[in-house]
Amino acid sequence: MQETYHKKNIGLNNSSSPVDENGKNCLHSFRDLSRLFEKRFNVSHFPKEPEKLYDAAQHLLTAGGKRIRPVMCLMGNEMFEEIKEDAYYVAVAIELFHNFTLIHDDIMDKAPLRRGMETVHTKYGESTALLAGDVMLVTGYESLQKVHIDYLPRVLSLFNKTAKEVCEGQQLDMDFEKTPDVSFDDYVKMITLKTSVALAASLQLGAILGGAGKGNQEHLYEFGKNLGIAFQVQDDYLDAFGDPEKFGKKQGGDIMANKKTFLLLQAMKVLSAGQQKELNRILSIKDESKIQPVLDIYKSCDIDQWAKELKHKYFSIAMDHLEETAVVSSRKKPLEELALFLIERDM
Amino acid sequence: MQETYHKKNIGLNNSSSPVDENGKNCLHSFRDLSRLFEKRFNVSHFPKEPEKLYDAAQHLLTAGGKRIRPVMCLMGNEMFEEIKEDAYYVAVAIELFHNFTLIHDDIMDKAPLRRGMETVHTKYGESTALLAGDVMLVTGYESLQKVHIDYLPRVLSLFNKTAKEVCEGQQLDMDFEKTPDVSFDDYVKMITLKTSVALAASLQLGAILGGAGKGNQEHLYEFGKNLGIAFQVQDDYLDAFGDPEKFGKKQGGDIMANKKTFLLLQAMKVLSAGQQKELNRILSIKDESKIQPVLDIYKSCDIDQWAKELKHKYFSIAMDHLEETAVVSSRKKPLEELALFLIERDM
Repeated sequence: MQETYHKKNIGLNNSSSPVDENGKNCLHSFRDLSRLFEKRFNVSHFPKEPEKLYDAAQHLLTAGGKRIRPVMCLMGNEMFEEIKEDAYYVAVAIELFHNFTLIHDDIMDKAPLRRGMETVHTKYGESTALLAGDVMLVTGYESLQKVHIDYLPRVLSLFNKTAKEVCEGQQLDMDFEKTPDVSFDDYVKMITLKTSVALAASLQLGAILGGAGKGNQEHLYEFGKNLGIAFQVQDDYLDAFGDPEKFGKKQGGDIMANKKTFLLLQAMKVLSAGQQKELNRILSIKDESKIQPVLDIYKSCDIDQWAKELKHKYFSIAMDHLEETAVVSSRKKPLEELALFLIERDM
Repeated sequence: MQETYHKKNIGLNNSSSPVDENGKNCLHSFRDLSRLFEKRFNVSHFPKEPEKLYDAAQHLLTAGGKRIRPVMCLMGNEMFEEIKEDAYYVAVAIELFHNFTLIHDDIMDKAPLRRGMETVHTKYGESTALLAGDVMLVTGYESLQKVHIDYLPRVLSLFNKTAKEVCEGQQLDMDFEKTPDVSFDDYVKMITLKTSVALAASLQLGAILGGAGKGNQEHLYEFGKNLGIAFQVQDDYLDAFGDPEKFGKKQGGDIMANKKTFLLLQAMKVLSAGQQKELNRILSIKDESKIQPVLDIYKSCDIDQWAKELKHKYFSIAMDHLEETAVVSSRKKPLEELALFLIERDM
């Protein structure tokens, strides 16, 4: 999940303390947790020297970020128990891991900008950026190592499994760029590994620390995983059909970059051989004149409608898993709100 | 410490079981431990897919290596207690970590060959090599995670500290390439971080698992650290003055590459301003004709003799720490033999 959240207010509860409108104790909102996390995270994570290495590592952290994953870890904890110190250690590790992947992904993609700033390799050179990513990952493990011994093995195990999967997802993404026909299932697998498992694992890690049972842990993992896929479908849809002003991105960016998306894969599946050939011809055009004809083709075979339904399918699966999680409804509210925030209801 | 060990027989004890010439139980030799380690290490460390990612990761492991660091971990354990399963988990993590650094270092150095084979980025491309390094580091942590809970926090803590230091050393090495005057102390610091702490920590990790006390752990750490520095001094010396046939490397490789070495730093320190200028002029020559004049300058101010003494200084410090380690002498034999093997007595 890249940095393409819409620019609406991310907090649904403006109070800074967890008390509801009747003065009763309630769980923290996204905004509350985001603030609590930032307090812990906006510190220096690195020694002073070597200066270039640690300046490079700090560069991306300073640029901010939505902190979705660490907040999901805190929510996973708070669903079952008051937030404990360990959840912050894990949340910090998750956010450092996420930033490590961004630094290395940007090197691989030769991306010049991230969060409106120069990418680490643009500013500090590829070698230092590579090392800064490495040292950030190790610093993430340093944060994990503080977790209480009762939880450490389970936390490490899930963290490691997820970290490997994210690397695998990135490799599949690169492989798919060079693969002419990628199946729907393969694309879902890639998206799941590259972006969804990190959301899923963040929730489960929090749940482990909250003392959740195996069943609840699994439901939360599936909730996060399917929510991530729904978000990616939406991201692909909005790139093509979203209101550029509301979405904050130029329309058709994926089409311009010849990116494989849910929409393109589905179009290739439903079009006749002749239409596929025509679509490929249009895609080979190198300027913006190709965007509208591709959108027209998408619309002609109802890809927009198909994408909406696909998003709702994954969103429903996610919400079913939240429903199945065995805690009282009031404890599910922050995650419901997060899901509704991430997923546009009017798409 | 790069892959420049001399091609003599690395094992000093040819028996495969730890029994001495009188049939008495004794500790394993380097060769024994190397064999025991290879048995555990020569397995598939990775899943099958994505194929390109894991083929790339496996590529370097298949090319072999001297396995100095994992064997030092096993030796650190066996000095205090029979080798336990945990020591193999940590040894595997150490060797995977070492290979992760080699993959990433080779990308940074744009090196075409490693262990006589194509480097990972040459064969699989930079992006996949970068990811293969990342996934190898995470796989190292997966091996660490199996360590018994009684040792896990201490093992993780030392492993993480060392991993960060190795990254710092690599950054300093890159920084020094662009720094005109590097001090002796700064160079020792860089070498210590880049290569020696990994040897030191490998021994200490083994000692932790063997139940060693804090004092013994520290002596072994210092033994490994100083042995590593002595080895680097020797490496720099042999590159300039070693017998190319015995050493297996072309004479003057560091001079050709304008590499900062112990020898060059010392020459710059003792030469007059005019001589320094002349040395810099010779170094700026781009062909092999510069090697002999630089060697002549080194000899004219006895840098060869100075380097021998410096190596012996660090070697003596290392051996003093081994001497101070509070175990019976017979348990120090494998480490003494390893030290004598790594450090040429006739230099």
